[in-house]
Formats: sequence, C-alpha cells, structure tokens
Amino acid sequence: MSDTHNADLLLTNINLATFDPALGPYGIIEQGALLVTGGHIQWLGKQQDLPKLGDVSHAVDGQGQWLLPGFIDCHTHLVFAGNRADEFEQRLQGVSYTDIAKQGGGIRRTVTATREASEAQLLTLVLKRAEVLLAQGVTCIEVKSGYGLDADSELKLLRVARQIEKHLPLTIKTTFLGAHALPAEYQDDAQGYIDLVCQHMLPQVAEQQLADAVDVFCENIGFTLAQTRQVFEAAKQLGLPVKLHAEQLSNMGGSALAADYQALSVDHIEFLDEAGVKAIAQSGTVATLLPGAFYYLRETQKPPIDLLRQYQVPMAVATDFNPGTSPILNLPLMLNMACTLFALTPEEALRGVTQHAAKALGLQNTLGMLKVGMQADMQLLDISHPNQLAYQIGGHPLTRLWQAGKPVKGGQK
Amino acid sequence: MSDTHNADLLLTNINLATFDPALGPYGIIEQGALLVTGGHIQWLGKQQDLPKLGDVSHAVDGQGQWLLPGFIDCHTHLVFAGNRADEFEQRLQGVSYTDIAKQGGGIRRTVTATREASEAQLLTLVLKRAEVLLAQGVTCIEVKSGYGLDADSELKLLRVARQIEKHLPLTIKTTFLGAHALPAEYQDDAQGYIDLVCQHMLPQVAEQQLADAVDVFCENIGFTLAQTRQVFEAAKQLGLPVKLHAEQLSNMGGSALAADYQALSVDHIEFLDEAGVKAIAQSGTVATLLPGAFYYLRETQKPPIDLLRQYQVPMAVATDFNPGTSPILNLPLMLNMACTLFALTPEEALRGVTQHAAKALGLQNTLGMLKVGMQADMQLLDISHPNQLAYQIGGHPLTRLWQAGKPVKGGQK
Ligand SMILES: [Zn+2]
Ligand SMILES: [Zn+2]
Repeated sequence: MSDTHNADLLLTNINLATFDPALGPYGIIEQGALLVTGGHIQWLGKQQDLPKLGDVSHAVDGQGQWLLPGFIDCHTHLVFAGNRADEFEQRLQGVSYTDIAKQGGGIRRTVTATREASEAQLLTLVLKRAEVLLAQGVTCIEVKSGYGLDADSELKLLRVARQIEKHLPLTIKTTFLGAHALPAEYQDDAQGYIDLVCQHMLPQVAEQQLADAVDVFCENIGFTLAQTRQVFEAAKQLGLPVKLHAEQLSNMGGSALAADYQALSVDHIEFLDEAGVKAIAQSGTVATLLPGAFYYLRETQKPPIDLLRQYQVPMAVATDFNPGTSPILNLPLMLNMACTLFALTPEEALRGVTQHAAKALGLQNTLGMLKVGMQADMQLLDISHPNQLAYQIGGHPLTRLWQAGKPVKGGQK
Repeated sequence: MSDTHNADLLLTNINLATFDPALGPYGIIEQGALLVTGGHIQWLGKQQDLPKLGDVSHAVDGQGQWLLPGFIDCHTHLVFAGNRADEFEQRLQGVSYTDIAKQGGGIRRTVTATREASEAQLLTLVLKRAEVLLAQGVTCIEVKSGYGLDADSELKLLRVARQIEKHLPLTIKTTFLGAHALPAEYQDDAQGYIDLVCQHMLPQVAEQQLADAVDVFCENIGFTLAQTRQVFEAAKQLGLPVKLHAEQLSNMGGSALAADYQALSVDHIEFLDEAGVKAIAQSGTVATLLPGAFYYLRETQKPPIDLLRQYQVPMAVATDFNPGTSPILNLPLMLNMACTLFALTPEEALRGVTQHAAKALGLQNTLGMLKVGMQADMQLLDISHPNQLAYQIGGHPLTRLWQAGKPVKGGQK
C-alpha cells in the first residue's frame, strides 16, 4: 500500500488549463488527470503518468472537457440594499446627475437603504448575488463594505460578508472600505470623517477580525492622497494589508502611495502613468482592471496595458459589482470586456480571474491555479479551448464545479 | 356556468408589463391577474376585476413578481459549426485580419466547417444554443441561413432551423440569407453567385417552404444595391417578405430600397440618414438595432436614434449571434447595451425584444405583448420594476416561463 495513492477524487480524461506559469501558455496539460485528497490537489499530470492508485472514493470521467481553477472575483461591493434602476432610467430620459443628486439619488440613497436594512435582509440579498456568481464557476469573492459609512453600519456589512461562507461553498475575503464616500452627516468635514474611520471604525473592525484588508476611494471626487495615507497608516498599525481604488478618473498618485504600503492591489488605474507602474511593479502590487465600470461609465481613457506588460505587473480582472457604476454580476463577461475594451489577450484575461486575482487577495499559495498542494477549487467546462471563454458571451459552459474538492450543488447544468 | 370563465391557467398576485401601447409606459398593470385558455391569453386586468371563475386547471400565485411577454431574439445566425475563438485570440496578439484571412480564417472557415457538418451535428449545436436563450426567457428566435453558400448547404441549414420547434418550446422564424457572403468558388463572380441565389436556391427554398423571409448583406464588403434589388425581386415573385443587413459600415441606400419592398426590418443601420429613416417610417419597416456587433467591432458611429424616435420608427433589439462579429448568446445583455451604447431608454430596449421584435418577424398579432388573444408566452421575474432588466447585467431573475400557456422545464431557477 505504501507505493499507491489513495484519493477522495480522481478526474480522468480531462484537459487542464492549470495557469501554472511553469507550464507555458494557460499552463495547459492535455489528456490529463488529477487527484484530490483532503480538499487539496494531490497530483496532476498526463493521464499516462498517473501513479498507482489505492482507494479512490469518487472517480469522474471528464469526457475530454477542460478543467480550470474556480474563478475569483477579487473586487466587489456585494453588500447593499436597493437598486438604482430608476436613476439609470432617468439619466437615459435626460435628467442630469445633479438633479438626481438633488432628489436624494446616487450613492447616498444606497447608503440610506443599506443602513435601514437588517443584517438578515442584507444576508438574503447577498446570498442571492453570490449564488449568481457561483453558477458562473466563481468559488472565491472579495466583498467590500462601504455603504454603511458609520461605525455600526460598516460593522454590520462586514458581519454579513463574513456569514456568506457559512451558507455557500465559497472563499470570502472581506475588505473594510469605510473611506468609500462622505456620509451626509459629514458633508462639509471630510477630515472629521477620515478621523472617525481611523480612530473609531478601524480599531473595531480589527478587534472583531471582520476585515482581511483595508481600502480607500482615492479620487478628486473621493478622498485625498493625505487622507488615504492616514487610513493606510492606521491599517498598518493594526497589521491589516491595504488596497486602493486609484487613478480611475484622474492621476492622483494613489498607486505610488499604495506601493509604499505594499498594497495587495490598486484597482481601476485608467490614468496610471509610467512612474506609478514602476512603483507597483517594485512593490509586487497587482493591477486590478475593472472593464465593467469603464463600459458602464462610457469611459475613454484605458489603463496602461502595454506599460503593465513591460514592467511585468500581474493584472487581475473583476466585476466591481456595485449599484451605481457597475451593476454587473457576471464575471465571465468581464473576460470578454477585458479583451474587447482593454485589448488584453484571452490568456491575460483568464489569469486575471484566476492566478492574479488570487494574488490580489493574498491567496496566491492557496487558490487560482491547479497545482499540487492548492485547494481543489475546480470547474469542468464544455469547451474546445480556454480562449473560447473570453471570445463567447453568454452560456458559460460549466458542467461541474468543485470547491475544496467537494462537488457544488447547482454547479452541474 | 355560462357567466363563468373556465381556464387552463390562472395567475394572480402579479404585476404585468404588457407592452400594450394603449396602457402607457411599459403597459403596466399593477396588482393584476391573467387567464390562459387554449394556449392564448383569455383575460388580463386588475385582480379586483377578475371575472367569476369556473374550472381552473392550474393556479399560480405570482407573489408580487412581474409578468412580461417572452423575449424575442429577432436577428440571429444560430446555425453554424465551429467557433473562431483562436482568431479572436490571434487578433489580440497582433495578427492582422489580412493574415488571418490568408490562413483561411474568417467567414470562409465557418462556411467550410458548416458545409462539412451533418444535419444531426448542426442540430445538436443549435439546440444547445437555443436552450441558452430559452433559459433567458426567450420564447421566439429568428434563425438565418448564410454559412452554407451553396444550394444543398443552405437548404440543410434551413431544415435544421425548422427542426428546432420539434425539440424545444420555441417559435422559430427562418430567414434565407444565401446572399450573406461570396463563397470561395465564386470569389471573382459576385453576379454569378447572385444569379445562383435567385434562380437556383430561392425557388427550392420557397418550394420546400423552408424560409419565412429573405435577407441580404448589402454593404461595400457585401452585395451591391443592384444585387440586393435582384434578390428582393426574386423573393417578391415567390411571395416571400424581405429583411436587410443595411447601413452597418457605410450608407449604401439599402434601407430605402428595402422600404420599396415593404421590408419587415432593416438591421444594424448605424449609417442610416434622414432620407432612409423617412423611407422606412413610411413603409412600416422595423429598425433592428444590434448593439452586440457594435460593441464587438468597437464601432463608433451610432444608429440615428433621435431620428428614429422623431419619425416613430419601431426599434427592435437583437443579439445578431454569429461566430465572427457577435458571438453573444445573451439577449438580456443586449437590453443594457442598447441603453449604455445607443442611449435607448429601458422601456425602448424592452419593447425592442418584445413588441417591436415581434413586428420585425411579422408576428405582431401573435407575440410580443400580453393582450387578450395573444399567444401566452410569458415570463415571471423577481424584480421590483421592469427597468431593472436593462440596468443590471448578470443573473436574469427568471422564476417561471410559459410558452403557449405551458410551463417550460428549466424555466424555473
Ligand atoms: Zn470598486
Ligand atoms: Zn446579422
């Protein structure tokens, strides 16, 4: 028995897109097989090299389909109440942003609805949304707070996010984004609000272990560079890693600051310049591209893809799901939008929702690749090549899904 | 018994978006009910006005959800073999269109694969695709030929399209698009090919009753105005209505010609001018907008929406699903793209996949509205208002689907 492999799960007759960089484009292994034990990948390779097997609990014939890592949506604002469909409609009927804001519309409306919603109500909403992503092969989601904007509400949002894992087979990473926008009660006192975030909210978030990272919306319509630094400094004191909404509408230098704090990722970055690219390359920070918001806002300035390639910055791709600028609950669509709108290659786009999305969450040793020792989050897809996933929109061809080696109900068509 | 209504199906506790123009925006009836008999709508209105009921076979409590007509995808190229994902990838890797064509890529590659595929193989592919649309609430699809480009192959494609209705609860309208592109064997003889289409293909298509309409790709890279007229004339002789791929890349005057032939629809029409809009307004021709192809090709010239509104031309919205310029099997996404890319209102977009899509297929007396006498193609949606369907992308909130009054399996989440 000592030279045989026992396994919980054996997959044969599959092609693998492992995204292991050591294996070349897509990390492809054709005519492969894979063994799972204890929720992790125990062995993978060519089927002809399969080791001698002992007890195997489950065996699946993949019928020549493709096995990929579960997708990772590494930037979402999943927890909020209400929607803003009527504002979307009003804008298309010619009502101005200003007039909508005067009626109490925009982000403040979402904040009001979210503050009023109970934890149970928010959980119901969030689980519905997470199930939509799960059905798309997504097994890991980053969830930000940021529609509470007071201590109690922000803590409530993070508690809701933490509960998702108890109900669905997902890995959830939570991010505290208290510095998302100014709440009405601090309308003329941004500094007062940032002090509240740093001195009052963040210590509670850290003490209650509700967040895995801290984020700020650094923008001319958001918070300044100095305020961002203040939040980062507070996070650092509490031992929390940082991320940043940076360079979406203008070049504020946020990414370079984020690099100084070894940020996990800088996100949006349409206006990032070469100095900023150099800075994040040196700090090992991931560039998270959000083509859905770019599409929704009809933006024209594209992220500096060529520079990011030149400096070998890992690029992630995410939905930025939120009710205002990206009500898009569709990660496979982001693969196509990253290619069509930003001219990423299909392989870059796919690494953006696997390997590099994992790195944007500090999970590069656990998720985002098919590799011995990694958690067995895997999707089986009825495709002829992984590039098809970025080419076609609609009908994500998922046939089976596993999270930590266990079959996901509903992951089968 | 004479003053009571028997019914096959009773829906109560629903809000209706009927798209009946007599009922104002969206044709909304809140707190409504609906009766179906013999596959058709027998009664609808406010629940409080529900007539006295006799025997009711099935009753459904809609729980306050919204009932809409089944969606209609009125422009697809659903029947082809293979995909062109590798060409999509090559282009993003910097290979030129010309070099791809030299390798035998582009539409001719799809034609070769489609000619080689058997009728059974094509049917399997087409049913898979149609099922994706059905799960999005689509109950009627227009299917064009056009990847055969010889008589036997074009007839084969139309036979496959005709078979869909036998396998799935869908209304299928078929369109003969022999004049889609030049096959390799007629590379230098466009006129010879058009003669073949008119004298050899069309008469067989008509005799075998395989097509409900005839279409042409009229474009500087397609067929000329004179060739289009020749096809239209042949169609007219055979009593077949026409449609046209028109004004997508340039203004050829195709739409005005189509109006002369009382075309059902002109499709794409990015370059349509005011004279063309006037012409189709007078002929009662539908303007079919295809925002997916616009998106995929990164086009910048938008269709003349304001003129279409001014002249009260009905606007339809469709996927244009095809392997080259719109590999998009997602009609709900087209609602958002019509709004985001073409600035349609959510109501216009929704009428584009219901009321006006029906008219583009000559089905305005049967489908596309909830109205007494219409076929009971209906979807129940978990939304707070129909505008939400154009606002949010991903997770089409379909809870139940009926085609001709019968529940569709898989139409329930
Ligand atoms: Zn965001
Ligand atoms: Zn077309």
